[in-house]
Amino acid sequence: MPRRSRTDSRRRRRTDRAGKELDQPPFRQLRNPYHPVELLSADEIEAIHNASLTVLEDIGINFLLPQASEILKAAGADVDKDGARVRFDRGLIEKSLETIPDRFTLHARNPERNLRFGEKFLNIGSVSSPPNVSDIERGRRDGNYADYCDFLKLAQSLNIVHMTLGHPVEPLDVEPAIRHLTSTLTRIELTDKPFSGYSLGRERILDVIEMARIARGIGEDLLLREPSLTSNINANSPLQFDIPMLWGIIEMSSRNQVISITPFTLSGAMAPVTVAGALTQQNAEAMAGLAFTQMVKAGAPVIYGGFTSNVDMKTGSPAFGTPENAKATLIGGQLVRRYGVPYRSSNVNASNAPDAQAVYESMMVTWAAVMGGANMIYHGCGWLEGGLTASFEKFIIDAEIMQMMAAFLEPLGVTSDDLAVEAIRDVGPGGHFFSTPHTLDRYETAFYKPILSDWRNYETWAEDGSVDATHRAHRIYKRLVEAYEQPPLDQGIREELEAFVARRIKEGGAPTN
Amino acid sequence: MPRRSRTDSRRRRRTDRAGKELDQPPFRQLRNPYHPVELLSADEIEAIHNASLTVLEDIGINFLLPQASEILKAAGADVDKDGARVRFDRGLIEKSLETIPDRFTLHARNPERNLRFGEKFLNIGSVSSPPNVSDIERGRRDGNYADYCDFLKLAQSLNIVHMTLGHPVEPLDVEPAIRHLTSTLTRIELTDKPFSGYSLGRERILDVIEMARIARGIGEDLLLREPSLTSNINANSPLQFDIPMLWGIIEMSSRNQVISITPFTLSGAMAPVTVAGALTQQNAEAMAGLAFTQMVKAGAPVIYGGFTSNVDMKTGSPAFGTPENAKATLIGGQLVRRYGVPYRSSNVNASNAPDAQAVYESMMVTWAAVMGGANMIYHGCGWLEGGLTASFEKFIIDAEIMQMMAAFLEPLGVTSDDLAVEAIRDVGPGGHFFSTPHTLDRYETAFYKPILSDWRNYETWAEDGSVDATHRAHRIYKRLVEAYEQPPLDQGIREELEAFVARRIKEGGAPTN
Repeated sequence: MPRRSRTDSRRRRRTDRAGKELDQPPFRQLRNPYHPVELLSADEIEAIHNASLTVLEDIGINFLLPQASEILKAAGADVDKDGARVRFDRGLIEKSLETIPDRFTLHARNPERNLRFGEKFLNIGSVSSPPNVSDIERGRRDGNYADYCDFLKLAQSLNIVHMTLGHPVEPLDVEPAIRHLTSTLTRIELTDKPFSGYSLGRERILDVIEMARIARGIGEDLLLREPSLTSNINANSPLQFDIPMLWGIIEMSSRNQVISITPFTLSGAMAPVTVAGALTQQNAEAMAGLAFTQMVKAGAPVIYGGFTSNVDMKTGSPAFGTPENAKATLIGGQLVRRYGVPYRSSNVNASNAPDAQAVYESMMVTWAAVMGGANMIYHGCGWLEGGLTASFEKFIIDAEIMQMMAAFLEPLGVTSDDLAVEAIRDVGPGGHFFSTPHTLDRYETAFYKPILSDWRNYETWAEDGSVDATHRAHRIYKRLVEAYEQPPLDQGIREELEAFVARRIKEGGAPTN
Repeated sequence: MPRRSRTDSRRRRRTDRAGKELDQPPFRQLRNPYHPVELLSADEIEAIHNASLTVLEDIGINFLLPQASEILKAAGADVDKDGARVRFDRGLIEKSLETIPDRFTLHARNPERNLRFGEKFLNIGSVSSPPNVSDIERGRRDGNYADYCDFLKLAQSLNIVHMTLGHPVEPLDVEPAIRHLTSTLTRIELTDKPFSGYSLGRERILDVIEMARIARGIGEDLLLREPSLTSNINANSPLQFDIPMLWGIIEMSSRNQVISITPFTLSGAMAPVTVAGALTQQNAEAMAGLAFTQMVKAGAPVIYGGFTSNVDMKTGSPAFGTPENAKATLIGGQLVRRYGVPYRSSNVNASNAPDAQAVYESMMVTWAAVMGGANMIYHGCGWLEGGLTASFEKFIIDAEIMQMMAAFLEPLGVTSDDLAVEAIRDVGPGGHFFSTPHTLDRYETAFYKPILSDWRNYETWAEDGSVDATHRAHRIYKRLVEAYEQPPLDQGIREELEAFVARRIKEGGAPTN
């Protein structure tokens, strides 16, 4: 067995500033080298595509914001007399999708954190938007600013988290009118990774766009050339885009910032009870939203978000990480590749605790996301209870899962050295490979090293208190929060951000109606 | 929401005799409709294949049983003067592999439980051979006959378990000389599904073959035409087959019974530290074993078992469900398909508790097994702690996971009805699908129904005691064992089995040296 001291010295080298408590791989972009899994034939994908075009032509989508209707009408869509229902002929949809870039770079305030999208890159985002927070020590409670900060510290410390998406938990103790200002300032201070703003009306998204610009220390011209913010747009399924979200598209896309369009198509509730039907509706809503971004500004970066799962037909409760969710995720990838648009998926589950159920549901859909060719995994770390709770333990468990996926995506070496015929000859029948030169040369980097898994034998583990994975995750969360260090932020930028936030708070923030 | 009573009446219809406590899908064969995931190119697979042929030609494999050496020599292999080291030229290997059937039926004492192998069928076996047993109430303890029986009751009751493989836990309180007789009699009484015998020397496997024949009420001629027993052969890696296992191959294959050849190639310990090297060795050992079965009897059914995982280089402990394990499983499938032989994989993990780690490790490799085209998942339910413990809770958790995989393998309907354009039109923007005819016609069978997952909302779950998945699994295990009913067994067959066992026990059983 290699001596422990060598491993330890390597561990020290591998650490990052904020994550120095943990022996984790460095921050890096992940790229998927594998051919995606295809559940349906090309003809079947075409059938879903065509059915969704029929929905867009014959049934149409409600766009509830008059300014959006005007843009749609000008672009050639058929807008009803009442101004809400919009029908698209297939030529218009196809023409609009043509200008969507198949790749782009999302800029962070720290250029080392810039993220590329498309081209088989895979980016992991943290959990977004739960109203509750939980850990096994303090239990489940309302989302609040202190826990919001702790999640950001975890997201900054764990190299596998590429970006923060939405509020990792809602800081409900911060007034709604100014919450976006406070939370964005905090986010820029606590992490240097790319982030997002909520499309909750025009004022909020404009504030966050401005703060993203200031954080990078750039002017409006450069912002227009360099996407520096993302915002997620949920269709209000079935077949509807609401006013606050449409403002988000207009303000973000017109400035070349990144929109992801994510229909909320839970099969059996907001979408048909068949997975194919739910995907037809998802695809219709997504294509309408994608097309609209291009009508706002041709060439604006946009991501196709798949979120089709199903409800429990006994209770009506949303279910996640189901076999249907996995199928929809993989087929969603097939559809999205047809359009050449980056693809967003999610790591979701419906468990009430960070337990075995949470993990098998998460793994079910995470595998599907990875093998479906997703470019972004939303809710990558920390989502629990169908999105109603952000869990600190689940955050750590998910970080381990995402790291394992990252290691799985590292291509296997198949050189003559890798095939190791000479090592097999050296060892021969009945021997062992622990101390052969072939092993000693490679053992430090040969295998994935976990941050959470405990591979000690049962006796050692039991003597040490029989601590299960969820309780170990709790300890890691606490240790990471304690060891957290803020990333550097230019003093001038900090002052400019603080002044902006102070002014906007003085003005009353954003409307809350 | 559909009325509860309709669901309940359906639940009653779906139950099986022994599993009547549970709303589970019926016993059925699973078939994988998807194209397997391919991590390596055809050239890279060829490189591994060729490297393993070089190992067989230049280095060779030790066959420690003189009777095996004789068979190998007669078939044209190059046997060393000392009689143990055997080298194979590639022509001999290729010729030998040609006679392996790409499909076969494994017969059970109840013909409704017969299992087909090959042809993209997927069969799930229960955990095999741990020396310890655990449940969260009584803790970890030595394997024993009472728990052995309870695992068989679970395996019989859960329709997702197709077969029992080895002892689900070692009944250490039964004398080694007669353990195979007692355990096999019990197994035939408690389950009517296909089963296996251990290749622990000539006498034991001959006893179990005879009992499999009696259990089916058939003669030796029919047994020869109808495989009715499986036995697993581990290479004693690196590059060695031991005497008891070789007797197993000789007695099983000569009678046309099913052997699975499974090299025990833990990368970094018994195999090279590179995954490609470990696979080279796995493939050399597997091809040697496969070829030997055909030298014993051309056309005998045999399965290629992949078990390449890695050790923790810090401690030397075996690790399972790692990213390397997943890669080896998928690439193993690519190799096996090259030879047209059924493929065995495993559901494994290294956790000391039925917790989050156990599940993410299990899911990592189970997904790889399924998408790698495995025809048999060994240790499908109940494996814990690197195989040192059989866990009752993990058995139930795994049953849920395997059921989810089975649902994932059901092809998606993409008919015009499935695409649901008319249902989307009926509901329209802002509506919901709960009570549309399209939903009401399909809701009972639309989605996978879990046996373990709890999808109730947090408040209801918390009022009901906040029971996590592992504790729910414990309750299900207890309920299933209580509700268990023995499958019918012909009285004449029972008496013949009992008489055989009584005679063999009187004779002293099998040698224990």
